[in-house]
Amino acid sequence: MSSKKLGAGVTRTDRFLMDGRTIRYYDTKGQNRIAEDKRDPETQPDIGEMRLDVLTNEWVVVAAHRQGRVFLPPKELNPLAPSKPGSFTEIPESDYEVVVFDNRSPSLREPKGEIKMPVDLTFETPPIPAAGKCEVVCFTSNYEASFKDLSDRQIRTVLEAWRDRVSELSQIDYIEYVAPFENRGEEVGVTLAHPHGQIYAYPYLPPRTEKMLAVAAAHKSKTGRILQDDVIAREIKDGTRIVAENKEWIAYVPFAARYPFEIHVSPKQSVPNLVSLSETACESFSPIAREVLLRLDAVFEMKMAYIAAWHQAPVRKGNDLLKLNWQITSVRRAPGKLKYLAGSESAYGSFMMDLSPEQSAQLLRDAKI
Amino acid sequence: MSSKKLGAGVTRTDRFLMDGRTIRYYDTKGQNRIAEDKRDPETQPDIGEMRLDVLTNEWVVVAAHRQGRVFLPPKELNPLAPSKPGSFTEIPESDYEVVVFDNRSPSLREPKGEIKMPVDLTFETPPIPAAGKCEVVCFTSNYEASFKDLSDRQIRTVLEAWRDRVSELSQIDYIEYVAPFENRGEEVGVTLAHPHGQIYAYPYLPPRTEKMLAVAAAHKSKTGRILQDDVIAREIKDGTRIVAENKEWIAYVPFAARYPFEIHVSPKQSVPNLVSLSETACESFSPIAREVLLRLDAVFEMKMAYIAAWHQAPVRKGNDLLKLNWQITSVRRAPGKLKYLAGSESAYGSFMMDLSPEQSAQLLRDAKI
Repeated sequence: MSSKKLGAGVTRTDRFLMDGRTIRYYDTKGQNRIAEDKRDPETQPDIGEMRLDVLTNEWVVVAAHRQGRVFLPPKELNPLAPSKPGSFTEIPESDYEVVVFDNRSPSLREPKGEIKMPVDLTFETPPIPAAGKCEVVCFTSNYEASFKDLSDRQIRTVLEAWRDRVSELSQIDYIEYVAPFENRGEEVGVTLAHPHGQIYAYPYLPPRTEKMLAVAAAHKSKTGRILQDDVIAREIKDGTRIVAENKEWIAYVPFAARYPFEIHVSPKQSVPNLVSLSETACESFSPIAREVLLRLDAVFEMKMAYIAAWHQAPVRKGNDLLKLNWQITSVRRAPGKLKYLAGSESAYGSFMMDLSPEQSAQLLRDAKI
Repeated sequence: MSSKKLGAGVTRTDRFLMDGRTIRYYDTKGQNRIAEDKRDPETQPDIGEMRLDVLTNEWVVVAAHRQGRVFLPPKELNPLAPSKPGSFTEIPESDYEVVVFDNRSPSLREPKGEIKMPVDLTFETPPIPAAGKCEVVCFTSNYEASFKDLSDRQIRTVLEAWRDRVSELSQIDYIEYVAPFENRGEEVGVTLAHPHGQIYAYPYLPPRTEKMLAVAAAHKSKTGRILQDDVIAREIKDGTRIVAENKEWIAYVPFAARYPFEIHVSPKQSVPNLVSLSETACESFSPIAREVLLRLDAVFEMKMAYIAAWHQAPVRKGNDLLKLNWQITSVRRAPGKLKYLAGSESAYGSFMMDLSPEQSAQLLRDAKI
C-alpha cells in the first residue's frame, strides 16, 4: 500500500486486487484504505496482439479473451459497486469516492519484455504484442448517478484522478497517447450501467489523433498559429454555436459537427494536456462540465447516450500543436431515433449530418436545466 | 422515357417521378415501363452544404432537411414496394425486377450552378453546396427477401445496375467517387426493411478512400506492386482466413479485420472498378455473393446486421492503385451482443477486436448453409 498527496486536497492510495492488478483510491477525507480483495485469486488474461491493417496502415488490436467479458449484469452483480459482506466486487472497500483500477479484460496491457514499435510500416510488418494500459475510472460509488449528478467537489476529484493517470501513464516508455473517455448508454455499447469512464493508453498514435496532428502542423506552418486557438476565436466571434461559457472554459458545437449533438469543451487558454491545466482552469471545470451534460439530457428530457473523450497532445510530440479538448458526441438525433454510423460514415469515413450545428446549439441552449 | 440495352440481357428504362426525379427500371424480359407516378407533385428539398472540419480537413455534409425522412414505416406504407391501385409508392409500376431512383431525401444532390471544390483547404474555407448524387437501389420487389435470397439471375441484374450507375455517375464533372453500398438491419440504422442498397456519388474522395489511396501509392512506389494483389496473394498463401472461393473471386476475413465479422470479396484478377469487371467475373459473382451472405446469416442462425460496401478506384485517379473490393462488415459479435464503435473506435479511430480473424473465418466456414 502506498499513499500520495495530489492537488485540490486529493490523496491517492494504492492497493492490489486478487490477480495482482492495482486499484487506486482518490479520496478527499483522509480515508484509510485497508480492505483486502477477498475473491479467489485469478490469473490475468494473456496479452493480445496488434496487427497492421495494410490497406490503411493502421493498427488493429485483437484481444480475443474479451469475448467473455461481463455484459450488462443485474444490479446485484454490479462489479463497480463497493464490496459488501458476502458480495465482493472490483472495489474491496465498503465505500469510495473515485477509484481507478486496471481493466480486468484489457485490450491493451503491460508487455512481458521490451516493446519496440516498428518504425517503417510495410506489408510484411508482423503482429506485435498489444502493449499499453486499459483502466476503469469509477466516478462515484452511487450506481444510480451520472457524471452530471456529481457535485463540484466530486467532479474535481475525478479531474484530479484523470490528471494523475495521464501524468503517470505518460512516464511509461511504450506509451505514446493517453485517452481518458466515458461511454454512456447501452446505445453506445456500455456493458455496465454504473457511472464510469475508461482510460486507454496506446503504444501508437490513434489514427484520428495522427490526422489531427498532421492538420494542426500544416496550419501552424502556414499561419504560425495554433489551430485550436483559431477555432476558439472563431466560435467566440460567431457566437451562434456556443452552448455554455465561464471565465476559463468555452463549450460549443463545432462548425462542422459530425453528430446531431456534439459539444467541444475547451479551456480558453489552450494547454497541451490535462496535467498542464492551471489551478483556476481546474477549479472552473466542474460547473461547465455539469452544465453541458445537464443540457444534453434536457434536450429530449431523457438520458442521452454519449461518448465524452479527452483529446490532448501525444506523450512525446506535438505539445505545441495539439491542445486539450473534451469532445462529447451523441448519436441521439431525436427521441426514438439514433444516428448510426452506416455506409457513408463507417465504410468510407464520410459524415452526413441531419441537424445543423446552429440548430443543435440552439436546442442545447434552450433546454431547461 | 428512354430505353437502353446493357450487358447480360438487361434493359434499362428511365421514367420521371412526380417531383422530377429519375427512376430507372433494370429488366430482363423486355417489360414495357409506362406507369405514371400518380402521387401529387412535390418540390424537391434544397441542396445541403458541405463544411470543412478544420481539425481533420474532412468534409462534413449538413443536410438538415433529412431530419423528417421516412423512418421504419409499417409494411403497408413501404415506399419501396411496387404501386397498387390506391397505394402509390416510389415505384409507379405494379411490379419490378431491379430499380434505381434518386433518393427523395438526398444528402448530396445535383447543384444548380457549377461547383468548384476548393483545392487548397484552409481554416477559412467557406461552406459549399453539397453537390453529388444519392440513389436508392431496390434489389427485388419482394419486401421479405434479402440479397442472399436472390437468384443468380437477380444478383446479376443488380450487378449490371451497379455497373451502369458507376459508369454514368463517373461521367458527371463534379463527381470524384462512386460508392454503392447496402446497409442491412435496424442495428445499423436502416430505416426501411425492404431489401435495398444505396449509391453515394461524392464530390470529394471520402477520408477512408483518400487514406487507402495514399497507402496503396506508397506500397506501389516502394515495391512496384499493387497492394491488393499482394493482399490476395497472402490470403491464398495463408489459407486460414478464406471463407469462400471460385474461379474468379475470393472471399476472406482480412488479416487485420476491424469487425467481429468482416469479409472482403475480391476478384482474383484485380480491376479498378465495377465497370471494368470481365464478363466471366460478372458471371461468377452471383454464387460467391450469395454464399458469403448465407454464411453470415448462418453463423448465429439469425439475420445479421451488415454493411456491404464496394470500394473501387476514384473516378479521376488511382486506377492503377486502388482496386475493386466488396467489404462486408457486421457489428454482431454474438447473439444478443453487438460491437459498438465507442470511445476507442469513434473518438480516436482505433479499432479493438474481440474475435480473431481466424476464429471468425472458421465460424463462417463451419456455418451450415
